[in-house]
Amino acid sequence: MKRILICFSYKGTNFAGYQIQNNGRTVQEDLQNAIKQVINQDVKLIVSGRTDAKVHAIRQYAHFDCDITFDATKLVFPLNDILPNDIKVISTKEVDCNFNANFDVKKKTYMYVLKCGEVSPMEYDLVSQCDFELDIDKMRVSSSDLIGLHNFKSFCASKTSVKTFEREIYDIQIVKEGDYLKFFVTGNGFLYNMVRIIVGTLVDIGRGKLSPQTIKTMLSSDNRNVGGRTAQPQGLYLYDVEY
Amino acid sequence: MKRILICFSYKGTNFAGYQIQNNGRTVQEDLQNAIKQVINQDVKLIVSGRTDAKVHAIRQYAHFDCDITFDATKLVFPLNDILPNDIKVISTKEVDCNFNANFDVKKKTYMYVLKCGEVSPMEYDLVSQCDFELDIDKMRVSSSDLIGLHNFKSFCASKTSVKTFEREIYDIQIVKEGDYLKFFVTGNGFLYNMVRIIVGTLVDIGRGKLSPQTIKTMLSSDNRNVGGRTAQPQGLYLYDVEY
Repeated sequence: MKRILICFSYKGTNFAGYQIQNNGRTVQEDLQNAIKQVINQDVKLIVSGRTDAKVHAIRQYAHFDCDITFDATKLVFPLNDILPNDIKVISTKEVDCNFNANFDVKKKTYMYVLKCGEVSPMEYDLVSQCDFELDIDKMRVSSSDLIGLHNFKSFCASKTSVKTFEREIYDIQIVKEGDYLKFFVTGNGFLYNMVRIIVGTLVDIGRGKLSPQTIKTMLSSDNRNVGGRTAQPQGLYLYDVEY
Repeated sequence: MKRILICFSYKGTNFAGYQIQNNGRTVQEDLQNAIKQVINQDVKLIVSGRTDAKVHAIRQYAHFDCDITFDATKLVFPLNDILPNDIKVISTKEVDCNFNANFDVKKKTYMYVLKCGEVSPMEYDLVSQCDFELDIDKMRVSSSDLIGLHNFKSFCASKTSVKTFEREIYDIQIVKEGDYLKFFVTGNGFLYNMVRIIVGTLVDIGRGKLSPQTIKTMLSSDNRNVGGRTAQPQGLYLYDVEY
Protein backbone atom coordinates (compact mmCIF):
# COMPACT_ATOMS: atom_id res chain seq x y z
CA MET A 1 0.00 0.00 0.00
CA LYS A 2 1.26 3.42 -0.96
CA ARG A 3 0.06 6.81 0.25
CA ILE A 4 -0.04 9.41 -2.54
CA LEU A 5 -0.13 13.18 -2.13
CA ILE A 6 -1.86 14.87 -5.01
CA CYS A 7 -1.68 18.61 -5.72
CA PHE A 8 -4.38 19.98 -8.00
CA SER A 9 -6.09 23.13 -9.21
CA TYR A 10 -9.72 23.80 -10.06
CA LYS A 11 -12.13 26.47 -11.13
CA GLY A 12 -15.04 26.29 -8.69
CA THR A 13 -17.70 27.86 -10.93
CA ASN A 14 -19.38 24.67 -12.08
CA PHE A 15 -18.95 22.70 -8.87
CA ALA A 16 -21.30 22.45 -5.90
CA GLY A 17 -18.08 22.61 -3.85
CA TYR A 18 -15.10 20.35 -3.23
CA GLN A 19 -16.72 17.73 -1.03
CA ILE A 20 -18.75 14.86 -2.44
CA GLN A 21 -22.50 15.18 -1.95
CA ASN A 22 -25.70 13.63 -3.24
CA ASN A 23 -26.78 16.56 -5.37
CA GLY A 24 -24.41 18.35 -7.67
CA ARG A 25 -21.06 17.94 -9.30
CA THR A 26 -18.08 18.01 -6.93
CA VAL A 27 -14.30 18.15 -7.33
CA GLN A 28 -13.82 15.17 -5.04
CA GLU A 29 -16.12 12.93 -7.08
CA ASP A 30 -14.60 13.91 -10.44
CA LEU A 31 -11.09 13.38 -9.12
CA GLN A 32 -11.84 10.04 -7.42
CA ASN A 33 -13.54 8.83 -10.61
CA ALA A 34 -10.52 9.81 -12.70
CA ILE A 35 -8.15 8.02 -10.31
CA LYS A 36 -10.33 4.92 -10.47
CA GLN A 37 -10.21 4.98 -14.26
CA VAL A 38 -6.41 5.20 -14.23
CA ILE A 39 -5.51 2.64 -11.54
CA ASN A 40 -8.72 0.58 -11.45
CA GLN A 41 -9.06 0.99 -7.66
CA ASP A 42 -11.58 2.83 -5.53
CA VAL A 43 -9.85 5.51 -3.49
CA LYS A 44 -10.97 8.04 -0.93
CA LEU A 45 -9.37 11.45 -1.02
CA ILE A 46 -8.51 13.14 2.29
CA VAL A 47 -8.28 16.82 1.47
CA SER A 48 -6.44 19.69 3.20
CA GLY A 49 -9.86 21.26 3.67
CA ARG A 50 -13.03 21.60 1.65
CA THR A 51 -13.90 24.65 -0.42
CA ASP A 52 -17.42 25.96 -1.06
CA ALA A 53 -19.41 26.18 -4.28
CA LYS A 54 -17.86 28.62 -6.79
CA VAL A 55 -14.61 28.89 -4.78
CA HIS A 56 -11.45 28.13 -6.78
CA ALA A 57 -8.14 26.50 -5.88
CA ILE A 58 -4.76 27.39 -7.34
CA ARG A 59 -3.09 24.64 -5.30
CA GLN A 60 -5.24 22.21 -3.33
CA TYR A 61 -3.84 19.03 -1.71
CA ALA A 62 -5.24 15.63 -0.80
CA HIS A 63 -3.88 12.18 -0.03
CA PHE A 64 -5.17 8.73 -0.91
CA ASP A 65 -4.04 5.15 -0.45
CA CYS A 66 -3.67 2.66 -3.27
CA ASP A 67 -1.68 -0.28 -4.56
CA ILE A 68 0.47 0.71 -7.50
CA THR A 69 3.82 -0.70 -8.58
CA PHE A 70 4.87 2.21 -10.82
CA ASP A 71 6.31 5.57 -9.78
CA ALA A 72 3.50 7.74 -8.33
CA THR A 73 4.69 10.82 -10.24
CA LYS A 74 3.56 9.09 -13.43
CA LEU A 75 -0.11 9.59 -12.47
CA VAL A 76 -0.19 13.25 -13.56
CA PHE A 77 -0.42 12.77 -17.31
CA PRO A 78 -3.12 10.04 -17.46
CA LEU A 79 -5.22 11.87 -14.87
CA ASN A 80 -5.13 15.15 -16.80
CA ASP A 81 -5.98 13.25 -19.94
CA ILE A 82 -9.24 12.09 -18.34
CA LEU A 83 -10.16 15.05 -16.12
CA PRO A 84 -12.50 17.82 -17.30
CA ASN A 85 -10.89 21.17 -18.18
CA ASP A 86 -11.83 22.79 -14.88
CA ILE A 87 -9.68 20.42 -12.78
CA LYS A 88 -5.97 19.97 -13.37
CA VAL A 89 -3.50 17.80 -11.49
CA ILE A 90 -0.25 19.65 -10.79
CA SER A 91 1.76 16.87 -9.13
CA THR A 92 1.51 13.45 -7.53
CA LYS A 93 4.09 11.86 -5.26
CA GLU A 94 4.41 9.06 -2.75
CA VAL A 95 4.52 10.19 0.89
CA ASP A 96 5.02 8.52 4.24
CA CYS A 97 2.05 6.41 5.34
CA ASN A 98 1.73 8.56 8.47
CA PHE A 99 1.29 11.72 6.45
CA ASN A 100 -2.22 13.17 6.53
CA ALA A 101 -3.21 15.93 4.07
CA ASN A 102 -5.81 17.26 6.49
CA PHE A 103 -4.16 17.00 9.93
CA ASP A 104 -0.64 17.89 8.85
CA VAL A 105 -1.45 21.31 7.38
CA LYS A 106 0.97 23.90 8.83
CA LYS A 107 -0.16 26.98 6.92
CA LYS A 108 -2.82 27.81 4.39
CA THR A 109 -2.98 30.86 2.17
CA TYR A 110 -6.15 32.13 0.57
CA MET A 111 -6.25 34.79 -2.12
CA TYR A 112 -9.28 37.01 -2.64
CA VAL A 113 -9.60 38.99 -5.89
CA LEU A 114 -11.67 42.15 -5.99
CA LYS A 115 -12.21 44.04 -9.24
CA CYS A 116 -12.59 47.74 -8.55
CA GLY A 117 -14.85 48.84 -11.40
CA GLU A 118 -16.66 47.09 -14.23
CA VAL A 119 -16.48 43.29 -14.30
CA SER A 120 -16.45 41.98 -17.86
CA PRO A 121 -18.41 38.89 -18.95
CA MET A 122 -15.05 37.10 -19.30
CA GLU A 123 -14.26 37.34 -15.58
CA TYR A 124 -17.62 37.40 -13.79
CA ASP A 125 -16.88 33.98 -12.28
CA LEU A 126 -13.27 34.75 -11.33
CA VAL A 127 -13.51 38.02 -9.38
CA SER A 128 -15.85 39.90 -7.12
CA GLN A 129 -16.93 43.40 -8.09
CA CYS A 130 -16.37 46.43 -5.87
CA ASP A 131 -18.20 49.62 -6.81
CA PHE A 132 -16.78 51.74 -4.02
CA GLU A 133 -13.74 53.95 -3.63
CA LEU A 134 -11.53 52.18 -1.10
CA ASP A 135 -9.00 53.63 1.31
CA ILE A 136 -6.44 50.86 0.99
CA ASP A 137 -4.07 52.24 3.62
CA LYS A 138 -6.90 52.23 6.14
CA MET A 139 -7.70 48.62 5.22
CA ARG A 140 -4.05 47.61 5.63
CA VAL A 141 -3.87 49.16 9.09
CA SER A 142 -7.12 47.46 10.16
CA SER A 143 -6.01 44.12 8.73
CA SER A 144 -2.98 44.12 11.01
CA ASP A 145 -5.35 43.78 13.98
CA LEU A 146 -6.15 40.27 12.72
CA ILE A 147 -2.56 39.03 12.92
CA GLY A 148 -1.90 36.60 15.77
CA LEU A 149 -3.81 34.02 17.77
CA HIS A 150 -7.44 35.02 18.29
CA ASN A 151 -10.91 33.68 18.90
CA PHE A 152 -12.43 34.20 15.45
CA LYS A 153 -16.04 33.32 16.32
CA SER A 154 -17.22 36.69 14.96
CA PHE A 155 -15.60 35.73 11.65
CA CYS A 156 -17.46 32.45 11.28
CA ALA A 157 -20.75 31.73 9.52
CA SER A 158 -23.37 30.35 11.89
CA LYS A 159 -23.71 26.96 10.23
CA THR A 160 -20.51 25.38 11.49
CA SER A 161 -19.71 22.22 13.39
CA VAL A 162 -16.30 23.21 14.75
CA LYS A 163 -15.72 23.17 18.50
CA THR A 164 -12.95 25.70 18.85
CA PHE A 165 -12.78 29.11 17.23
CA GLU A 166 -9.12 29.78 18.02
CA ARG A 167 -7.05 30.28 14.91
CA GLU A 168 -3.77 32.03 14.20
CA ILE A 169 -3.32 34.43 11.30
CA TYR A 170 0.31 34.83 10.28
CA ASP A 171 0.06 37.37 7.52
CA ILE A 172 -2.33 39.52 5.48
CA GLN A 173 -1.17 41.33 2.36
CA ILE A 174 -3.36 43.66 0.30
CA VAL A 175 -1.85 44.11 -3.15
CA LYS A 176 -3.11 46.52 -5.80
CA GLU A 177 -2.56 45.43 -9.41
CA GLY A 178 -4.23 47.91 -11.74
CA ASP A 179 -7.99 47.68 -11.15
CA TYR A 180 -7.58 44.51 -9.09
CA LEU A 181 -7.16 44.35 -5.36
CA LYS A 182 -5.77 41.04 -4.12
CA PHE A 183 -5.94 39.94 -0.51
CA PHE A 184 -3.53 37.21 0.62
CA VAL A 185 -4.43 35.74 4.01
CA THR A 186 -2.16 33.15 5.62
CA GLY A 187 -3.01 31.25 8.77
CA ASN A 188 -2.85 27.87 10.48
CA GLY A 189 -6.50 27.22 9.65
CA PHE A 190 -9.72 28.97 8.78
CA LEU A 191 -13.31 28.80 10.00
CA TYR A 192 -16.35 28.53 7.74
CA ASN A 193 -16.51 31.69 5.55
CA MET A 194 -13.72 33.27 7.62
CA VAL A 195 -11.71 34.70 4.70
CA ARG A 196 -14.86 36.00 3.00
CA ILE A 197 -15.96 37.72 6.24
CA ILE A 198 -12.48 39.21 6.73
CA VAL A 199 -12.49 40.61 3.17
CA GLY A 200 -16.10 41.82 3.39
CA THR A 201 -15.36 43.60 6.67
CA LEU A 202 -12.13 45.17 5.38
CA VAL A 203 -14.01 46.44 2.30
CA ASP A 204 -16.70 47.98 4.51
CA ILE A 205 -13.92 49.65 6.51
CA GLY A 206 -12.16 50.80 3.32
CA ARG A 207 -15.31 52.43 1.96
CA GLY A 208 -16.02 54.14 5.27
CA LYS A 209 -19.17 52.19 6.12
CA LEU A 210 -17.57 50.59 9.20
CA SER A 211 -15.09 52.11 11.63
CA PRO A 212 -11.45 50.97 11.52
CA GLN A 213 -12.05 49.75 15.09
CA THR A 214 -14.50 47.11 13.84
CA ILE A 215 -11.91 44.32 13.62
CA LYS A 216 -10.91 44.79 17.27
CA THR A 217 -14.57 44.91 18.31
CA MET A 218 -15.29 41.70 16.42
CA LEU A 219 -12.32 39.89 17.96
CA SER A 220 -13.53 40.75 21.47
CA SER A 221 -17.27 40.32 20.94
CA ASP A 222 -17.77 36.77 19.58
CA ASN A 223 -20.67 38.10 17.54
CA ARG A 224 -20.86 37.69 13.75
CA ASN A 225 -23.40 40.52 13.47
CA VAL A 226 -20.81 43.14 14.41
CA GLY A 227 -18.80 42.63 11.23
CA GLY A 228 -19.19 43.49 7.58
CA ARG A 229 -20.76 41.46 4.81
CA THR A 230 -19.54 38.05 3.63
CA ALA A 231 -17.69 38.66 0.35
CA GLN A 232 -18.94 36.64 -2.64
CA PRO A 233 -17.49 33.17 -3.25
CA GLN A 234 -16.30 33.65 -6.85
CA GLY A 235 -13.46 35.98 -5.76
CA LEU A 236 -11.97 33.39 -3.38
CA TYR A 237 -9.05 31.11 -4.22
CA LEU A 238 -7.32 28.55 -2.03
CA TYR A 239 -3.85 29.77 -2.98
CA ASP A 240 -1.50 27.27 -1.36
CA VAL A 241 -1.04 24.88 1.55
CA GLU A 242 2.15 24.29 3.47
CA TYR A 243 2.92 21.00 5.23
CA MET B 1 -40.24 54.36 -34.24
CA LYS B 2 -36.63 54.62 -33.16
CA ARG B 3 -33.66 52.56 -34.31
CA ILE B 4 -31.28 51.69 -31.47
CA LEU B 5 -27.67 50.59 -31.81
CA ILE B 6 -26.61 48.39 -28.93
CA CYS B 7 -22.99 47.53 -28.13
CA PHE B 8 -22.47 44.50 -25.89
CA SER B 9 -19.95 41.96 -24.67
CA TYR B 10 -20.33 38.27 -23.93
CA LYS B 11 -18.43 35.19 -22.86
CA GLY B 12 -19.32 32.50 -25.41
CA THR B 13 -18.62 29.46 -23.22
CA ASN B 14 -22.16 28.69 -22.21
CA PHE B 15 -23.85 29.71 -25.45
CA ALA B 16 -24.63 27.60 -28.50
CA GLY B 17 -23.55 30.70 -30.44
CA TYR B 18 -24.87 34.21 -31.02
CA GLN B 19 -27.76 33.42 -33.33
CA ILE B 20 -31.12 32.22 -32.05
CA GLN B 21 -31.82 28.51 -32.66
CA ASN B 22 -34.22 25.83 -31.53
CA ASN B 23 -31.76 23.95 -29.36
CA GLY B 24 -29.47 25.68 -26.95
CA ARG B 25 -29.01 28.98 -25.22
CA THR B 26 -28.07 31.88 -27.49
CA VAL B 27 -26.90 35.46 -26.94
CA GLN B 28 -29.57 36.81 -29.30
CA GLU B 29 -32.41 35.15 -27.40
CA ASP B 30 -31.16 36.26 -23.96
CA LEU B 31 -30.68 39.82 -25.17
CA GLN B 32 -34.04 40.03 -26.98
CA ASN B 33 -35.78 38.67 -23.88
CA ALA B 34 -34.08 41.24 -21.68
CA ILE B 35 -35.07 44.08 -24.02
CA LYS B 36 -38.65 42.81 -24.02
CA GLN B 37 -38.69 42.82 -20.23
CA VAL B 38 -37.45 46.41 -20.13
CA ILE B 39 -39.57 48.04 -22.85
CA ASN B 40 -42.43 45.53 -23.09
CA GLN B 41 -42.00 45.16 -26.87
CA ASP B 42 -40.86 42.31 -29.05
CA VAL B 43 -37.74 43.30 -30.95
CA LYS B 44 -35.52 41.59 -33.48
CA LEU B 45 -31.80 42.20 -33.25
CA ILE B 46 -29.84 42.63 -36.49
CA VAL B 47 -26.26 41.85 -35.57
CA SER B 48 -22.94 42.88 -37.16
CA GLY B 49 -22.34 39.17 -37.70
CA ARG B 50 -22.96 35.99 -35.78
CA THR B 51 -20.32 34.25 -33.67
CA ASP B 52 -20.04 30.50 -33.11
CA ALA B 53 -20.48 28.45 -29.96
CA LYS B 54 -17.79 29.21 -27.33
CA VAL B 55 -16.58 32.32 -29.23
CA HIS B 56 -16.51 35.51 -27.16
CA ALA B 57 -17.15 39.14 -27.97
CA ILE B 58 -15.42 42.13 -26.39
CA ARG B 59 -17.56 44.54 -28.44
CA GLN B 60 -20.42 43.18 -30.55
CA TYR B 61 -23.04 45.43 -32.18
CA ALA B 62 -26.65 45.03 -33.23
CA HIS B 63 -29.58 47.29 -34.04
CA PHE B 64 -33.27 46.99 -33.30
CA ASP B 65 -36.40 49.06 -33.80
CA CYS B 66 -38.80 50.03 -31.03
CA ASP B 67 -41.11 52.71 -29.75
CA ILE B 68 -39.69 54.43 -26.71
CA THR B 69 -40.17 57.99 -25.54
CA PHE B 70 -37.16 58.16 -23.19
CA ASP B 71 -33.50 58.65 -24.12
CA ALA B 72 -32.11 55.40 -25.60
CA THR B 73 -28.90 55.65 -23.60
CA LYS B 74 -30.98 54.96 -20.49
CA LEU B 75 -31.45 51.32 -21.56
CA VAL B 76 -27.98 50.22 -20.38
CA PHE B 77 -28.63 50.02 -16.66
CA PRO B 78 -32.00 48.17 -16.66
CA LEU B 79 -30.73 45.71 -19.27
CA ASN B 80 -27.61 44.86 -17.26
CA ASP B 81 -29.77 44.48 -14.20
CA ILE B 82 -31.71 41.69 -15.94
CA LEU B 83 -29.05 40.06 -18.12
CA PRO B 84 -27.07 37.03 -16.94
CA ASN B 85 -23.44 37.64 -15.92
CA ASP B 86 -22.02 36.38 -19.22
CA ILE B 87 -23.65 39.16 -21.28
CA LYS B 88 -23.09 42.83 -20.59
CA VAL B 89 -24.45 45.85 -22.43
CA ILE B 90 -21.75 48.49 -22.98
CA SER B 91 -23.83 51.22 -24.63
CA THR B 92 -27.14 51.95 -26.33
CA LYS B 93 -27.90 54.94 -28.56
CA GLU B 94 -30.41 56.08 -31.13
CA VAL B 95 -29.18 55.94 -34.72
CA ASP B 96 -30.54 56.97 -38.11
CA CYS B 97 -33.35 54.72 -39.35
CA ASN B 98 -31.27 53.91 -42.43
CA PHE B 99 -28.39 52.57 -40.36
CA ASN B 100 -27.95 48.79 -40.53
CA ALA B 101 -25.65 47.03 -38.02
CA ASN B 102 -25.00 44.24 -40.49
CA PHE B 103 -24.68 45.98 -43.88
CA ASP B 104 -22.90 49.10 -42.66
CA VAL B 105 -19.88 47.35 -41.14
CA LYS B 106 -16.70 49.00 -42.44
CA LYS B 107 -14.11 47.03 -40.48
CA LYS B 108 -14.11 44.18 -38.05
CA THR B 109 -11.29 43.13 -35.75
CA TYR B 110 -11.00 39.70 -34.21
CA MET B 111 -8.55 38.81 -31.46
CA TYR B 112 -7.27 35.27 -30.98
CA VAL B 113 -5.54 34.35 -27.72
CA LEU B 114 -3.07 31.49 -27.60
CA LYS B 115 -1.51 30.37 -24.33
CA CYS B 116 1.98 29.02 -24.94
CA GLY B 117 2.34 26.47 -22.13
CA GLU B 118 0.06 25.14 -19.43
CA VAL B 119 -3.54 26.34 -19.42
CA SER B 120 -4.90 26.64 -15.91
CA PRO B 121 -8.45 25.58 -14.96
CA MET B 122 -9.26 29.30 -14.55
CA GLU B 123 -8.70 30.08 -18.23
CA TYR B 124 -9.50 26.88 -20.13
CA ASP B 125 -12.54 28.53 -21.70
CA LEU B 126 -10.79 31.83 -22.51
CA VAL B 127 -7.65 30.78 -24.38
CA SER B 128 -6.41 28.06 -26.67
CA GLN B 129 -3.37 26.04 -25.64
CA CYS B 130 -0.23 25.80 -27.76
CA ASP B 131 2.31 23.15 -26.79
CA PHE B 132 4.83 24.01 -29.49
CA GLU B 133 7.79 26.36 -29.71
CA LEU B 134 6.78 29.01 -32.22
CA ASP B 135 8.96 31.11 -34.51
CA ILE B 136 6.96 34.32 -34.16
CA ASP B 137 9.02 36.29 -36.69
CA LYS B 138 8.32 33.65 -39.30
CA MET B 139 4.60 33.83 -38.49
CA ARG B 140 4.64 37.63 -38.81
CA VAL B 141 6.30 37.46 -42.23
CA SER B 142 3.81 34.84 -43.44
CA SER B 143 0.84 36.76 -42.05
CA SER B 144 1.74 39.75 -44.23
CA ASP B 145 0.87 37.64 -47.29
CA LEU B 146 -2.76 37.79 -46.14
CA ILE B 147 -2.98 41.59 -46.27
CA GLY B 148 -5.05 42.94 -49.14
CA LEU B 149 -7.98 41.86 -51.27
CA HIS B 150 -7.98 38.09 -51.87
CA ASN B 151 -10.19 35.15 -52.65
CA PHE B 152 -10.22 33.46 -49.22
CA LYS B 153 -12.02 30.26 -50.25
CA SER B 154 -9.14 28.17 -48.83
CA PHE B 155 -9.74 29.91 -45.50
CA CYS B 156 -13.42 29.00 -45.27
CA ALA B 157 -15.07 25.98 -43.64
CA SER B 158 -17.03 23.90 -46.14
CA LYS B 159 -20.44 24.48 -44.56
CA THR B 160 -21.04 28.02 -45.75
CA SER B 161 -23.81 29.71 -47.71
CA VAL B 162 -21.88 32.75 -48.94
CA LYS B 163 -21.62 33.41 -52.65
CA THR B 164 -18.42 35.38 -52.86
CA PHE B 165 -15.14 34.56 -51.13
CA GLU B 166 -13.47 37.91 -51.79
CA ARG B 167 -12.54 39.70 -48.61
CA GLU B 168 -9.99 42.36 -47.75
CA ILE B 169 -7.66 42.07 -44.79
CA TYR B 170 -6.31 45.42 -43.64
CA ASP B 171 -4.03 44.43 -40.82
CA ILE B 172 -2.68 41.48 -38.82
CA GLN B 173 -0.73 42.03 -35.61
CA ILE B 174 0.84 39.24 -33.57
CA VAL B 175 1.58 40.48 -30.06
CA LYS B 176 3.47 38.54 -27.39
CA GLU B 177 2.45 39.27 -23.79
CA GLY B 178 4.31 36.93 -21.46
CA ASP B 179 3.09 33.40 -22.19
CA TYR B 180 0.21 34.70 -24.29
CA LEU B 181 0.30 35.26 -28.03
CA LYS B 182 -2.48 37.52 -29.28
CA PHE B 183 -3.45 37.75 -32.94
CA PHE B 184 -5.39 40.83 -34.05
CA VAL B 185 -6.93 40.45 -37.50
CA THR B 186 -8.75 43.39 -39.10
CA GLY B 187 -10.72 43.16 -42.33
CA ASN B 188 -13.86 44.28 -44.12
CA GLY B 189 -15.52 40.93 -43.43
CA PHE B 190 -14.73 37.32 -42.62
CA LEU B 191 -15.84 33.95 -43.95
CA TYR B 192 -17.00 31.05 -41.79
CA ASN B 193 -14.07 29.97 -39.55
CA MET B 194 -11.72 32.28 -41.48
CA VAL B 195 -9.89 33.75 -38.47
CA ARG B 196 -9.56 30.32 -36.84
CA ILE B 197 -8.10 28.87 -40.06
CA ILE B 198 -5.70 31.83 -40.40
CA VAL B 199 -4.48 31.35 -36.81
CA GLY B 200 -4.29 27.55 -37.13
CA THR B 201 -2.26 27.85 -40.33
CA LEU B 202 0.08 30.50 -38.89
CA VAL B 203 0.70 28.28 -35.84
CA ASP B 204 1.51 25.33 -38.10
CA ILE B 205 3.97 27.60 -39.96
CA GLY B 206 5.42 28.89 -36.69
CA ARG B 207 6.09 25.39 -35.39
CA GLY B 208 7.65 24.33 -38.69
CA LYS B 209 4.95 21.85 -39.69
CA LEU B 210 3.96 23.88 -42.74
CA SER B 211 6.17 25.91 -45.05
CA PRO B 212 6.05 29.73 -44.87
CA GLN B 213 4.84 29.58 -48.47
CA THR B 214 1.59 27.92 -47.37
CA ILE B 215 -0.40 31.17 -47.13
CA LYS B 216 0.45 32.08 -50.75
CA THR B 217 -0.39 28.55 -51.91
CA MET B 218 -3.74 28.70 -50.09
CA LEU B 219 -4.63 32.07 -51.60
CA SER B 220 -4.01 30.76 -55.11
CA SER B 221 -5.47 27.27 -54.72
CA ASP B 222 -9.06 27.72 -53.47
CA ASN B 223 -8.65 24.52 -51.49
CA ARG B 224 -9.21 24.36 -47.72
CA ASN B 225 -7.19 21.13 -47.45
CA VAL B 226 -3.93 22.92 -48.25
CA GLY B 227 -3.99 24.93 -45.02
CA GLY B 228 -3.39 24.24 -41.37
CA ARG B 229 -5.85 23.21 -38.71
CA THR B 230 -8.84 25.28 -37.57
CA ALA B 231 -7.85 26.81 -34.21
CA GLN B 232 -10.23 26.09 -31.32
CA PRO B 233 -13.22 28.41 -30.76
CA GLN B 234 -12.53 29.33 -27.11
CA GLY B 235 -9.48 31.46 -28.05
CA LEU B 236 -11.49 33.65 -30.43
CA TYR B 237 -12.91 37.06 -29.56
CA LEU B 238 -14.83 39.49 -31.75
CA TYR B 239 -12.74 42.46 -30.66
CA ASP B 240 -14.46 45.45 -32.25
CA VAL B 241 -16.55 46.61 -35.21
CA GLU B 242 -16.17 49.90 -37.03
CA TYR B 243 -19.07 51.58 -38.85
